[in-house]
Amino acid sequence: MSQQEIDAIRTLLTSKPRPVGWSERRQRIDEVGSVWPVADDVRLEEADLDGVPGEWSIASGSDAARVLMFFHGGGYCSGSILSHRRMVTEAGRAARMRTLAVAYRLAPEHPYPAAHEDAMTAWRFLRKQGIPARNIAVGGDSAGGNLTITLINRLRSAGEEQPACAWLASPWTDLTMSGPSLETKDAVDPLIHKAYLEELASAYAPAPVDRKDPLISPLFADLHGFPPTLIQVGSEETLLDDAVRFARAAGSAEVNVTLQIWPHMIHAWPMWNAKLEDGRQALSQAGQFIRRWL
Amino acid sequence: MSQQEIDAIRTLLTSKPRPVGWSERRQRIDEVGSVWPVADDVRLEEADLDGVPGEWSIASGSDAARVLMFFHGGGYCSGSILSHRRMVTEAGRAARMRTLAVAYRLAPEHPYPAAHEDAMTAWRFLRKQGIPARNIAVGGDSAGGNLTITLINRLRSAGEEQPACAWLASPWTDLTMSGPSLETKDAVDPLIHKAYLEELASAYAPAPVDRKDPLISPLFADLHGFPPTLIQVGSEETLLDDAVRFARAAGSAEVNVTLQIWPHMIHAWPMWNAKLEDGRQALSQAGQFIRRWL
Repeated sequence: MSQQEIDAIRTLLTSKPRPVGWSERRQRIDEVGSVWPVADDVRLEEADLDGVPGEWSIASGSDAARVLMFFHGGGYCSGSILSHRRMVTEAGRAARMRTLAVAYRLAPEHPYPAAHEDAMTAWRFLRKQGIPARNIAVGGDSAGGNLTITLINRLRSAGEEQPACAWLASPWTDLTMSGPSLETKDAVDPLIHKAYLEELASAYAPAPVDRKDPLISPLFADLHGFPPTLIQVGSEETLLDDAVRFARAAGSAEVNVTLQIWPHMIHAWPMWNAKLEDGRQALSQAGQFIRRWL
Repeated sequence: MSQQEIDAIRTLLTSKPRPVGWSERRQRIDEVGSVWPVADDVRLEEADLDGVPGEWSIASGSDAARVLMFFHGGGYCSGSILSHRRMVTEAGRAARMRTLAVAYRLAPEHPYPAAHEDAMTAWRFLRKQGIPARNIAVGGDSAGGNLTITLINRLRSAGEEQPACAWLASPWTDLTMSGPSLETKDAVDPLIHKAYLEELASAYAPAPVDRKDPLISPLFADLHGFPPTLIQVGSEETLLDDAVRFARAAGSAEVNVTLQIWPHMIHAWPMWNAKLEDGRQALSQAGQFIRRWL
């Protein structure tokens, strides 16, 4: 059952030739991410987060006083509010709270630190709405997981209040690409391969930016004091070791960390929750985790 | 708060000189494990599991038709029903089911494979009571986690039915002692150090037994088909990497695996749940996990 469902998603993802070029890639992720619409009971509202585009969502029965702030994936070069709308809105339902999706600027037009600046602008905007940090969870998938970690690290460095918890789905934590699973899972991952990651990293953090900088590769950050964190990753991902090693680094630094490895799942699988029971289950677990800490 | 509580447990553990000699060690673990008694509403019953001593427990309100089978830790050389009674009985309460604690034979008097034989005898006894495998969870701490994994691996090899899920607390998965945390956490772990583990491994699996054998070090087993598994480990454990690497190995082999790293916690901390909120919380999480799969 779950195998049939994930096979159908694999078929969707490989139904067209792999796009080349940034605008084609952006169009493609928007397409495959928005195949299934947002649920009928979700209210969406466009937002201007002090200049950064965003979108509020709330499902019926959710608490507007607490917020899941979300950064979409796409290697810092693609992805959008549209591509991740179904994932974000259902995550909000599972966490029973409002969501705020952030459309940070993308590379190569806007390389590092543009995305970091936008994430911080969005965070400050949210706080200025009167939402206490303890009522905010921050999450993201893939590059959005990277941005989640680095935003929190910047807040910690500045001695500012942090969100209550973090949720990382298939996070990209190591832009030096040193994880063994980049090789061992290459044959089973339909989306993420080393050459593609190299291209993304070069666009987002071009030389002379040091990819070992903890602000680029948060796997190498000192994580003491980081908030409780849930990491979810599929077993059929080249980024498996980005998740496992980040869990190890965080846990070793006295962070409360939970790592879930989901059999047969692929990169950022909760995007396709509309037709994937394991996507719904992962969001349900993420929602439970978030509610435990907020 | 949680820091004060764990500091008090550390004080308890170091209040007497570290014992030398097997019988002194057995006495000491029984002492520190039974400082706080079992809760008043727990019914205990001695059991003869076809020759292997055991103990049933059930807390008020629990389901007698489902069973958490438990293997205590102690490096295969110490530990008992007495030392782990508080941990086992409260785990059963959290899982809302009966428990069956197994007093397998200990090394050096009874080296490998005596413990494996007794675990299998206990499993077969339980099945003969008419309990379906899907109504059984198996769990253990430290060497008991090792025994949990190897029992399930033996069932898988034999093509027999497996328990519904596994729960591993601070598991010892690598008797070759190759985990980096054996060094990096040596200064903060009050209990487990490499020289001690070497002594235990020599007693349990003396030459010519190969410690790389997956039946001795299940970290090196092929884990495809292993049931859903929760692994809980403290951040201040030399065995941190035994947990992290087993999670990685299992997840990579398409096992549904959850790893929780608990800040400031030490080896097998749920033993002291009577005076340790994080011990109670860990058991609560374990109970939730078990109920999800049974």
